[in-house]
Amino acid sequence: MRMITLDEVASLLKENDHFKLLTHTYPDGDTLGGAFALAFALRKLGKKANVAVNGAVPSKFRYLVRNYTEQEFEPQYIVSVDVAAMTLLGDSVMEGVEKIDLCIDHHRTNSVTADHIYVDSTAAAACETIWQLIGMLGVEPDEDIAAGVYTGISTDTGCFCYINTTPRTHMIAAQVIPYCDWQSINYTNFVVKTRAKIKMERMIYDTMEFYAGGKCAVVYTTIAMQKALGAGDDEMEGLANIPRQVEGVDMGITMREKDGGVFKISVRTNEDINAAEFCKQFGGGGHPGAAGCSIEGDLATVKKQLVDAAEAFL
Amino acid sequence: MRMITLDEVASLLKENDHFKLLTHTYPDGDTLGGAFALAFALRKLGKKANVAVNGAVPSKFRYLVRNYTEQEFEPQYIVSVDVAAMTLLGDSVMEGVEKIDLCIDHHRTNSVTADHIYVDSTAAAACETIWQLIGMLGVEPDEDIAAGVYTGISTDTGCFCYINTTPRTHMIAAQVIPYCDWQSINYTNFVVKTRAKIKMERMIYDTMEFYAGGKCAVVYTTIAMQKALGAGDDEMEGLANIPRQVEGVDMGITMREKDGGVFKISVRTNEDINAAEFCKQFGGGGHPGAAGCSIEGDLATVKKQLVDAAEAFL
Repeated sequence: MRMITLDEVASLLKENDHFKLLTHTYPDGDTLGGAFALAFALRKLGKKANVAVNGAVPSKFRYLVRNYTEQEFEPQYIVSVDVAAMTLLGDSVMEGVEKIDLCIDHHRTNSVTADHIYVDSTAAAACETIWQLIGMLGVEPDEDIAAGVYTGISTDTGCFCYINTTPRTHMIAAQVIPYCDWQSINYTNFVVKTRAKIKMERMIYDTMEFYAGGKCAVVYTTIAMQKALGAGDDEMEGLANIPRQVEGVDMGITMREKDGGVFKISVRTNEDINAAEFCKQFGGGGHPGAAGCSIEGDLATVKKQLVDAAEAFL
Repeated sequence: MRMITLDEVASLLKENDHFKLLTHTYPDGDTLGGAFALAFALRKLGKKANVAVNGAVPSKFRYLVRNYTEQEFEPQYIVSVDVAAMTLLGDSVMEGVEKIDLCIDHHRTNSVTADHIYVDSTAAAACETIWQLIGMLGVEPDEDIAAGVYTGISTDTGCFCYINTTPRTHMIAAQVIPYCDWQSINYTNFVVKTRAKIKMERMIYDTMEFYAGGKCAVVYTTIAMQKALGAGDDEMEGLANIPRQVEGVDMGITMREKDGGVFKISVRTNEDINAAEFCKQFGGGGHPGAAGCSIEGDLATVKKQLVDAAEAFL
C-alpha cells in the first residue's frame, strides 16, 4: 500500500487494461460522474472498462449512462473512485474483487485498502482529479466525459456554493461546460423538486420551533408524515439544510424518525459553532459544520434533550 | 452616441477623472457590485470616484461599502453600470447629471442615451466587463474589488446555475475568489432566508394549483397575505421561481396583487416554451424563459384568464 503521485496514477492507467471501476454505496454525483467519465475516457484509448454500481443508477443520474453499455471481459485492474472507506463498497460492487489496485479519492479521512492510493483532499470532488487524469491521458473530452465531471464537481459543491470550492474547481468548470448540457444537469440536480418533496418541505416548515433566543431552530419528520406523503428517501434529501437557512439561526437541528423508536439527528451550524462537538454528547460525530447522531425515545423526549443541550451549548 | 470597444472604454477611464458611477433602481448585486468595484479600482489609480445609488444600499449588500466613504468633488465624467434603460435611473441618481458619458452594460436590449456605449450581451453580468477593465487598467485586485465582482457574477447567474453562465464566468470566479470572503457572500445571497420569507413561501405553496395536465403551476400572493406576514419587497424576491421548480411543470405562473386592483404576473418556462410570447397576449414581454405582464381584475378572474391562455398555449 503506497501513496502515489498524480503522474504515477496516470502511468498506471496507461499501462493497465480491463478496468473495473468501483463506486460507493448510496451513489452520488461524484462517484458516478467520476467513474463513468473515467470509463468513457479509458474506452476512448481502446481499453476495456466497466463501472460497478451498488444497485441501479439513480434515475436522476440516468443521463450519465445514456451511451454506456456493459462490456464483456474478465476484470484485471480494480480502481475505486470517490470511495472513502471499505465499508462503503457494497457486496454487489465487490463481487469477484480480491483486492483494489488503485484508489482515487478526495476525502481527508480515506481509509481504503489498496495497492496504490491517491487522495487529493484539496479537491472539492474526486472528479477534479478525474478531469486532470483525462487530460494527462491525452483523451479529447466529449459530452459523456464532460457530463460526468461537471456532475461530480457541481453536486459536491452545491453548484459552486460550498466552502470546498476553489479556483481550480471553477477552472475545470470553465473547461468542461462547452462539452455538455450542464444547464439540464443543473435543472435536474438543483432546480426540480417532486410534488412529494414540496409537500414534505411545507410540513417541515410547520414543525419549525426556535430556541436559544432564535439561534437554534428545530424541525422534525415522523414515519407517519413520510407515509402520509408517500415520500421516499429522495424526498428526504437536503431537508437537514432547511433550519440553518433561517436568518439568525446558528444551529439547525433536523430530527428524522426511523423504524425502531430511534430518531436520526442532523445538525448544521454556522462558523464558530462546532456541530461535531455537539453531537459527540449523544455518541455521534462528523464535521464542524455538519454532524449527526442517533437518539432513542419519543418525539417530545428526544426534542427536549436536544433543546436543553443546544441551549447549554450556544 | 457611439458603440466602442473594450480598449476604448479602458482608455476613457484612464483619461478621465472625477467619476460619478450610476446604478439602476431596485439595485441588485450586479449594478452595485460593478459600480463599487470600479470606484475602488479608480480610487486605487489616484482618481476620485463616487457611486450614486437610488435610496440606501440594501442591507444584504452592505458588505460592499464597508470601506467606502463618499468623496468631495464636482463630478466630471458620468458612467452608468448595468443600466439597461434611462427609465431605470432614479431621480436621486440623476441629480445634477446632464448627460451620461459612458454606458457599460450587458443587456441585449440596452437603450441608454450616452456619448459612448459598451454592451457585451455575452457577459453573464456587467461585472464580467468590470473585471476585464480592472485588469486593463493595471489595478491589483483587493478584497473590496473582488467582493463586488463576485457579487455581480454570482447573483446574476444564480450562483453559476443559470444558462447565462459561460466559461468566462467561471474563469473570472477562479480569479476573484482568492481575494474575497465569497463563502460569506454566498451565505448572504443564496442560503439565508428571513422568517417572513419562509412564511411567505409556505403560504405560496398553499396556493399552488396545477393545470394543463400538470404542465402549468399557478401560485399567487395578495396584499392581505403580504400584510399579514409583514413581508417587504425583499421577501417577495425569488418567489417567481417557485412554481417552475415542480417536477413536470413547464410553465410556472406567479400572480402578485399590487395596489389598485392589478396583478403583476411573472412567468417562468422551461426550454421550448416561450414565456415572452405568452405574456405578449396580455401586453407584456421579456425573455424566452422569464417574462411578465400586468392584468387588472380580481384574483379569480385574472387566474381564469391566465389558466385558459396557458391551456391553449401549452
